Amino acid sequence: MSIRVTVWGENVHEHKNKVVAQVYPKTMHGTIAEALNGTDGITASTVTLQDPEHGLTAAKLAETDVLVWWGHAAHGDVQDEIVERVCNAVWGGMGMIFLHSAHFAKPFKRLMGAPCNLTWREAGERERLWVTSRQHPIAAGLPDHFELEHEEMYGEPFGVPEPLETVFISWFAGGEVFRSGLTYRRGAGNIFYFRPGHETYPTYHDANVQRVIRNAVHWAHNPMPRIRNPNDAPNTPVTAALEPIVERGPRLHHDGEEGFR
Amino acid sequence: MSIRVTVWGENVHEHKNKVVAQVYPKTMHGTIAEALNGTDGITASTVTLQDPEHGLTAAKLAETDVLVWWGHAAHGDVQDEIVERVCNAVWGGMGMIFLHSAHFAKPFKRLMGAPCNLTWREAGERERLWVTSRQHPIAAGLPDHFELEHEEMYGEPFGVPEPLETVFISWFAGGEVFRSGLTYRRGAGNIFYFRPGHETYPTYHDANVQRVIRNAVHWAHNPMPRIRNPNDAPNTPVTAALEPIVERGPRLHHDGEEGFR
Amino acid sequence: MSIRVTVWGENVHEHKNKVVAQVYPKTMHGTIAEALNGTDGITASTVTLQDPEHGLTAAKLAETDVLVWWGHAAHGDVQDEIVERVCNAVWGGMGMIFLHSAHFAKPFKRLMGAPCNLTWREAGERERLWVTSRQHPIAAGLPDHFELEHEEMYGEPFGVPEPLETVFISWFAGGEVFRSGLTYRRGAGNIFYFRPGHETYPTYHDANVQRVIRNAVHWAHNPMPRIRNPNDAPNTPVTAALEPIVERGPRLHHDGEEGFR
Amino acid sequence: MSIRVTVWGENVHEHKNKVVAQVYPKTMHGTIAEALNGTDGITASTVTLQDPEHGLTAAKLAETDVLVWWGHAAHGDVQDEIVERVCNAVWGGMGMIFLHSAHFAKPFKRLMGAPCNLTWREAGERERLWVTSRQHPIAAGLPDHFELEHEEMYGEPFGVPEPLETVFISWFAGGEVFRSGLTYRRGAGNIFYFRPGHETYPTYHDANVQRVIRNAVHWAHNPMPRIRNPNDAPNTPVTAALEPIVERGPRLHHDGEEGFR
Repeated sequence: MSIRVTVWGENVHEHKNKVVAQVYPKTMHGTIAEALNGTDGITASTVTLQDPEHGLTAAKLAETDVLVWWGHAAHGDVQDEIVERVCNAVWGGMGMIFLHSAHFAKPFKRLMGAPCNLTWREAGERERLWVTSRQHPIAAGLPDHFELEHEEMYGEPFGVPEPLETVFISWFAGGEVFRSGLTYRRGAGNIFYFRPGHETYPTYHDANVQRVIRNAVHWAHNPMPRIRNPNDAPNTPVTAALEPIVERGPRLHHDGEEGFR
Repeated sequence: MSIRVTVWGENVHEHKNKVVAQVYPKTMHGTIAEALNGTDGITASTVTLQDPEHGLTAAKLAETDVLVWWGHAAHGDVQDEIVERVCNAVWGGMGMIFLHSAHFAKPFKRLMGAPCNLTWREAGERERLWVTSRQHPIAAGLPDHFELEHEEMYGEPFGVPEPLETVFISWFAGGEVFRSGLTYRRGAGNIFYFRPGHETYPTYHDANVQRVIRNAVHWAHNPMPRIRNPNDAPNTPVTAALEPIVERGPRLHHDGEEGFR
Repeated sequence: MSIRVTVWGENVHEHKNKVVAQVYPKTMHGTIAEALNGTDGITASTVTLQDPEHGLTAAKLAETDVLVWWGHAAHGDVQDEIVERVCNAVWGGMGMIFLHSAHFAKPFKRLMGAPCNLTWREAGERERLWVTSRQHPIAAGLPDHFELEHEEMYGEPFGVPEPLETVFISWFAGGEVFRSGLTYRRGAGNIFYFRPGHETYPTYHDANVQRVIRNAVHWAHNPMPRIRNPNDAPNTPVTAALEPIVERGPRLHHDGEEGFR
Repeated sequence: MSIRVTVWGENVHEHKNKVVAQVYPKTMHGTIAEALNGTDGITASTVTLQDPEHGLTAAKLAETDVLVWWGHAAHGDVQDEIVERVCNAVWGGMGMIFLHSAHFAKPFKRLMGAPCNLTWREAGERERLWVTSRQHPIAAGLPDHFELEHEEMYGEPFGVPEPLETVFISWFAGGEVFRSGLTYRRGAGNIFYFRPGHETYPTYHDANVQRVIRNAVHWAHNPMPRIRNPNDAPNTPVTAALEPIVERGPRLHHDGEEGFR
């Protein structure tokens, strides 16, 4: 069965900025979805900020195996209720890929529990990504490094938690470095952050970048059933204890009662 | 100079529940602060949920090196604004220790980015904590295991991210296990979660438990200056680039402009 | 294409000890291989300590995707040269699963760089394994815990490095706990340690245990090409630098020369 | 009490190469020890490859809190027995700092369990180290980046296990990046790898480099008692079990017997 990917696009600069419109005549999310679609058993669709519920209804998330997120100008317009819904889907097992300026997207910050800040410069400078974990599935089919001739610079320190794995590190012509590919797990969900993708450059048309995103979709996909209530904290009463124990001492709760939240 | 610890107490059950009041006549936070105070160069004070701004004013956090948090019945009463303030202090370098039912405290969930759920049973059963990282500073002076004769059970799976280090794992008489001591770093702040401490049992009078919390205070303390704006994402203009580069291609931002959030 | 698994068996107690011979009439490695064979696209074969080169010729390793290792009484009989060959295969991308007493196998100790010690007791006591990482691929299809009625006890502290992920933790009737399922990566190779499997008990006939090993084979399998010389440290001469640089200052080496080892 | 540091120097190029002799008239290890000595409560001494037992007698290791290691040309001359002795000291709690070309030193490879390889170029090019973990104790007192005008290049992929923390990443003028500061724990010992320090450049005279090494000494120092037998795997007989259990089923071992190795 194919992996169902939803590409979430902020969909703002494509319509307000001539350069972006020219570079991405099919929109950014449309370009990314097209690059994924039909390859390697992936079926990709798109939703946008402007859709009802930002396109991320409970039904849509239920049929999304991996969610790809690009946002920049309108992070603040994303409703907190939808952010919680997305995080719950991740905790239940949905994979998620955050691209570039999504380092400041609400769901990324929520899942990291950290500032997620960095330094930046918009000068169309050269970026070179180095693979730091040889033969990692997200680096499959890539050379040990590849270049993007024009990119925005992101520099360290990058305010994220220590990742499970560092897959890419970027070199920038202006003198900075950046951890460009990082893996995390939150609940049952696999998360990948991938740095490149400033909207005024043709980054998502690049074959290596498309390859990374495709690989990451496969890596992030958790084929096991989605956990329905990923926040449940069930009580195990004494009578159901796996080893015979006798209740002792005072209690605050009664059997079957829900805990405090 | 001594380490300034603030013990945050929910301060509810001590006044509503006779058992808790008898076990902790000086309140739970008071008992913990007393155990820390004057030892090993620690100066501890207490604040509570009922204080203005829950006792966590900007001034109080600025003079807190390590914050200890115990809450259970009233997680939902903690204002979101204060939660963000606490998280910012952590990201800036304040140490933080979460105790027992604080696994569901708002700042813990916010810093973990994960469900933080577990299974539980209130039966006064035996808990035995095993040291899993020998000679770890948080286990200094402890035997390789110690027991609490009456405790609430918390069972795996514990819905937290992979920690930096697992320091303790608990065995429960009823058949469960739990990762009882976990370290994390978020921004410049060191975080320790420590499991024991149900309010109806005399856990915080236990010498080993007190020792762990004292050790954790020392471990979590970051003596470097607090970062004032831990979320800053500064622009580095082309003219200030460390290597000579020439601006190329189109731009969205002007020099010195703030990025989107 | 199916995953080629080689099960390495020490093959000593099956022939010297009547109990083991009765529990495993087809040998331990034979039992494990049979449980893997033909399922989920796995093809399993066996080799033993007594085979020439312990069955681990360069040719055999080249056609092994995942190596499963069980040893206990004769760790010291494994030749160091074969150990290095196995480690090189792992670094090049071969997956590896270490079972039970293989915590003291030479290749495990070599790959961990740590003591790998623990406490133990042979009393046929109950072990209960808890899943600590929900919906992890190695826990696919398992309940949140399962029991082995008779097992040897292994207790913490377990002298291994912090793992990438903790997948299982065991509870023992005698009062101990143990991190029973741990993942690592060394070079391009995925490594899984799985605790159960004392030779006098029918552990490898257990359906849940077989399931874990099968899952681990899939998890450990790296489908990318094996790295031929995983220890290579190539010189990149100035003339081949990716950015134009001019050689400056004194040198120890000449272009193309190999570095020191 | 002051921290007792031993700086181990290979001590070859200082005597064979005029450039190195001129840059380090007091030898490399002598220069490093001098930079540490008397500062921040550190007492540093030196030993060399040419000393009996390479200067690393059991007595010397017993009174070494943190061992600093620089080697390059003569890795192969270090006796395996001494390597095991050093690793045992680390597992018992001795801190250890590996500098530059010590990425291929026997004890580093032994402790990592990985190839530890990289790419390299000796062109006296500019290296810029970026702090990736703000306010980390090893980065105390440093700016967010610092430069070494002439250094050997080391490039990714660096064949080491995922570290506990990435503290520095280097940018090189020729286009490469490298994880320059990495922390690990093996047994009770804290390990730090720090990249800079090619012998033909004055790197160890640099104030920032000296500061990093000093900070790392404090970070690596484990003040708890050294574990005497860090490889012990003690048997816990049934009669000493913490919970009452009855021995069941067949056994291989007798009470108090040592396990297999």
